[in-house]
Amino acid sequence: MVNQNGTYPYTQPDAPHAEHIYAVIMAGGVGSRLWPLSRRKMPKQFLDFFGDGSMIAKTVARLDGIVKPENILIITNQSGKALAKKQLPHIPTRNIIVEPIGRNTAPCIALATAYIKKHCPDAIACVLPADHLITDVKLFQQTLRAAIETAARTEALVTIGIKPDRPETGYGYIQVNQEHTDLTTSIKVRFGINAHKVKTFAEKPDLETAKQFLASGDFLWNSGVFVWRVDSIIGEYKRYLPQIYFDMQNIIEAIGTRKEKKVIESFYSWVHPISIDYGVMEKAESVYVLEGNFGWSDAGSWDEIFRHLAHEHIMDDSIVLNEAQNVFALRPKGKSIAVVGIDDVLVIDTKDALLICKRGRSQDVKTVVDALKRRQLEEFM
Amino acid sequence: MVNQNGTYPYTQPDAPHAEHIYAVIMAGGVGSRLWPLSRRKMPKQFLDFFGDGSMIAKTVARLDGIVKPENILIITNQSGKALAKKQLPHIPTRNIIVEPIGRNTAPCIALATAYIKKHCPDAIACVLPADHLITDVKLFQQTLRAAIETAARTEALVTIGIKPDRPETGYGYIQVNQEHTDLTTSIKVRFGINAHKVKTFAEKPDLETAKQFLASGDFLWNSGVFVWRVDSIIGEYKRYLPQIYFDMQNIIEAIGTRKEKKVIESFYSWVHPISIDYGVMEKAESVYVLEGNFGWSDAGSWDEIFRHLAHEHIMDDSIVLNEAQNVFALRPKGKSIAVVGIDDVLVIDTKDALLICKRGRSQDVKTVVDALKRRQLEEFM
Repeated sequence: MVNQNGTYPYTQPDAPHAEHIYAVIMAGGVGSRLWPLSRRKMPKQFLDFFGDGSMIAKTVARLDGIVKPENILIITNQSGKALAKKQLPHIPTRNIIVEPIGRNTAPCIALATAYIKKHCPDAIACVLPADHLITDVKLFQQTLRAAIETAARTEALVTIGIKPDRPETGYGYIQVNQEHTDLTTSIKVRFGINAHKVKTFAEKPDLETAKQFLASGDFLWNSGVFVWRVDSIIGEYKRYLPQIYFDMQNIIEAIGTRKEKKVIESFYSWVHPISIDYGVMEKAESVYVLEGNFGWSDAGSWDEIFRHLAHEHIMDDSIVLNEAQNVFALRPKGKSIAVVGIDDVLVIDTKDALLICKRGRSQDVKTVVDALKRRQLEEFM
Repeated sequence: MVNQNGTYPYTQPDAPHAEHIYAVIMAGGVGSRLWPLSRRKMPKQFLDFFGDGSMIAKTVARLDGIVKPENILIITNQSGKALAKKQLPHIPTRNIIVEPIGRNTAPCIALATAYIKKHCPDAIACVLPADHLITDVKLFQQTLRAAIETAARTEALVTIGIKPDRPETGYGYIQVNQEHTDLTTSIKVRFGINAHKVKTFAEKPDLETAKQFLASGDFLWNSGVFVWRVDSIIGEYKRYLPQIYFDMQNIIEAIGTRKEKKVIESFYSWVHPISIDYGVMEKAESVYVLEGNFGWSDAGSWDEIFRHLAHEHIMDDSIVLNEAQNVFALRPKGKSIAVVGIDDVLVIDTKDALLICKRGRSQDVKTVVDALKRRQLEEFM
């Protein structure tokens, strides 16, 4: 039962013990669609957009009371390691794990899972992107606790889906089975969270399909947050990604030995980029999804960031608009911006790079970074 | 006669002696339509837009061989004095004259004329704005020489009009009399410059009127460059602006005495803003205009500046455009700019202020500075 102050009581006999709960925070992204604030040397998860802490620091803070700092693993790349150490002083340095190269989420999660399996064979792992925005932290925590409970009571994979409020074409979708089971009913009763068995995963749809998804009421956005017993996910790797599973066994064996680094490098030398969604989730037979209503965005583009931002966050007297509607601007402190005669524009100004982008077009910012790369202007990337 | 290398031979007996030729460079403007590059503390005439010297330095350089540096007066305001001293090391400091307050061109020219009259009663004065753009310096000099000759041979006021190439609504116009006189014929023969008697001056027209002006072939743009004998212009002040004329006499008397500063302050304490065009030129009976075909712009707005700028001046690899046509950008060295999904935009980026303006709308930039003033954000003005 949820206790009076709304938190999940870990002392309850059938609750998973806090020692067994781990988190994997995936922080290897580049965030090139958030250029020019997000840079190769300072990717978006390490940025503080709103003056209240970096995205990764807030991701860790949201686990407070659920996952102990020593059970939180950060998976990042070489340049992210120093940033993570600096921004997350409570996380033990040994918990910051470096991927030699980014290969999408399936290899990343395999590597992290190997570490958890080594230290705690019957752990439950929460996998979270480091760079998402969440408005209602209390409700997020409640949802995550429900997901942990769901994973603890089954061998299923559990994911958190977001109740859509618009026919978004930028996210993947999850179709739910509306029939309730004992487990989903119990989760609803105990946590107040809607839980469903998953019918199918759907890739990013076109607008027409997205509208149908929204109208049907059967679809949730795929948030990329997963919870499972490590044994369960290892079993799924064995079934659907056996080559990765094979190297996971080698890595588990090598952790803490002189071979550790070499075995990990060997794994990344052959493994192809593949997402956990495509490699495992879409194929797995038993997947639950819990409805998240905590105000979520993947912060994947400037349009997303500004959708999330309160207007007063960004407008003040030093922004002057003359026949310019719907202007959103981020800028260095002490800089004035004027826009004359242009509507619907995003302005992201930094010390050495400026982006001016039509609203709704911010997915194309990636092409700017591609162009800078082609032109060998690495200082701006 | 023009000599073989195309310059006007001053040794010719009837040519005005170089000692008698003076120039007045009006450099008191604020240039708020060129915000954010032009600032109260660094107005546009002191800016170097093209990397080849400030506008005022180029204005002075264009007089080389026509007016001796010690005969060039700079009329500016208090903050402009230091900039003029720094940027014009060849001009004697005593030639930099400070207006206590800007009161448009008629009082400014009256003050400068008083100084010239004091030092050289039979001088010929060329009056030039400090902040105009001229492409063909040789042809400008030839035209100015022809104007000096015209003024020397008459008691008329002489102005330079620009042959229009479009129905511009941002400039005043001058209607010419197409009938030729001995003088206009002589100027054409000797200098190759078309000269006309002026019929009327016309204020900035609407587009329909501007089109009629252009079609008629009888109209030139009013460039704001004037040439006259100082006695002639003093006579016109006496006739049309007698109060100003009265104070001019006082100033001439006071120059070089202890009363000089006080008399000038007294003049500016009562004089109202009035342009030389409205106060004198439109009313004067004998005015000649010489056709200027040297590529001219008043550099009055960002649209004007960019019309004048060669494209390669402003585009390089560090500007990335994605579905963005007709983007013109000025920016600090070492800064990259990307524009996504917006056409026809002017971007002026500086260290502490950024302007993003639709092309064709740059006249409205003045309102930005007005807004900053209302908001008491003086640091950005």
